[in-house]
Amino acid sequence: MDQTVGVLGGTGPQGKGLALRWAKAGIPVIIGSRKAERAEATADELRGLAGVEHITGRDNAGCAAEADVVLIAVPWEGHGELLESLRDALVGKIVIDCVNPLGFDNQGAYPLRVPEGSAAQQAEQLLPDSRVTAAFHHVSAVLLADLSVSEVDTDVLVLGDDREATDLVVSLAGVIPGVRGIYGGRLRNAHQVEALTANLIAVNRRYKAHAGVRITDVT
Amino acid sequence: MDQTVGVLGGTGPQGKGLALRWAKAGIPVIIGSRKAERAEATADELRGLAGVEHITGRDNAGCAAEADVVLIAVPWEGHGELLESLRDALVGKIVIDCVNPLGFDNQGAYPLRVPEGSAAQQAEQLLPDSRVTAAFHHVSAVLLADLSVSEVDTDVLVLGDDREATDLVVSLAGVIPGVRGIYGGRLRNAHQVEALTANLIAVNRRYKAHAGVRITDVT
Repeated sequence: MDQTVGVLGGTGPQGKGLALRWAKAGIPVIIGSRKAERAEATADELRGLAGVEHITGRDNAGCAAEADVVLIAVPWEGHGELLESLRDALVGKIVIDCVNPLGFDNQGAYPLRVPEGSAAQQAEQLLPDSRVTAAFHHVSAVLLADLSVSEVDTDVLVLGDDREATDLVVSLAGVIPGVRGIYGGRLRNAHQVEALTANLIAVNRRYKAHAGVRITDVT
Repeated sequence: MDQTVGVLGGTGPQGKGLALRWAKAGIPVIIGSRKAERAEATADELRGLAGVEHITGRDNAGCAAEADVVLIAVPWEGHGELLESLRDALVGKIVIDCVNPLGFDNQGAYPLRVPEGSAAQQAEQLLPDSRVTAAFHHVSAVLLADLSVSEVDTDVLVLGDDREATDLVVSLAGVIPGVRGIYGGRLRNAHQVEALTANLIAVNRRYKAHAGVRITDVT
């Protein structure tokens, strides 16, 4: 990969963890955040952790404009508004949505209803000229952040309707030690992958785990 | 397990495969079908395959009445009507729903909208006095049917709101060689587990596999 990956919402746990692992694997990363200073502070922290120089920080608009491939890792609440504001900057780019629209109550997590069907399909509607994929929904931020975890034991389901785009995202999963990218279907089947995070949260509570998912019989 | 398991729709591939494996593991099984003769024919075939005597066939009503634990493995189209007709016979019993409401078109499989949220939640509404769980959505019928497959490489996510019932279903998964039952959340989180079958169908097409799911970091 000689492409630069931008991480919108790169100061949150999921975005930060993936940014760290990608940078460790030699990929240039731009952290995006609402405030450039917060992005720069996270970039600085990650440069120290990863021991590399190729991590920079920008505001989200700058991140979207400069990166070749863009991961959306913002909270669900701000998802639609942010993507709408970045439509022009993201034209023609591969966009990876890893957002899980979940609610929480005293019985745990549950999926929120999304009028477009899923966060990924909302992205597809708001970014008609981007190449939208969905992936990295289930990777534990805790395990990503902990570099003493030398192999992250999980597959990453990659969804999308553009073969070249999903192939690239499968590769981007595979650069993280232990992780394997697997094509997981078209974007219309993204909802259940996003929502399955609620089940993994239930698994984590019951078994005190950082659960991931492996697909069997695929070699 | 000294309880008898009934399999409604036990002449279809999923029900038949699970019945075979349970009977092999020593559990008495009753095959249910709309027509008793078809159920008896399948029971006869499975007795031969498993080399055991404790598999019988009944019509669905007889199966529901006689079994202690009942698996619903009928096509989605007949799901609601059948359960409504069996409400009295299923009072107090543990019911396991493994039905995946899916549609198919030229782009593959996709989840159908279910007004109650999921097949399992429809069962819960139609069987208010039963102990409804959801499980066995992703186990490959092909691998179950093939006794030369000595270990079926998959976990089974078990959902439900009744701890004793989900614990029993976890055990029932565990008697199949290679299979592990894992608690996967409350019944309100069943939809995405059912719908994930559409993604596994996409995986199977792309990778020529009989894909299953393993949950990592749970020991």
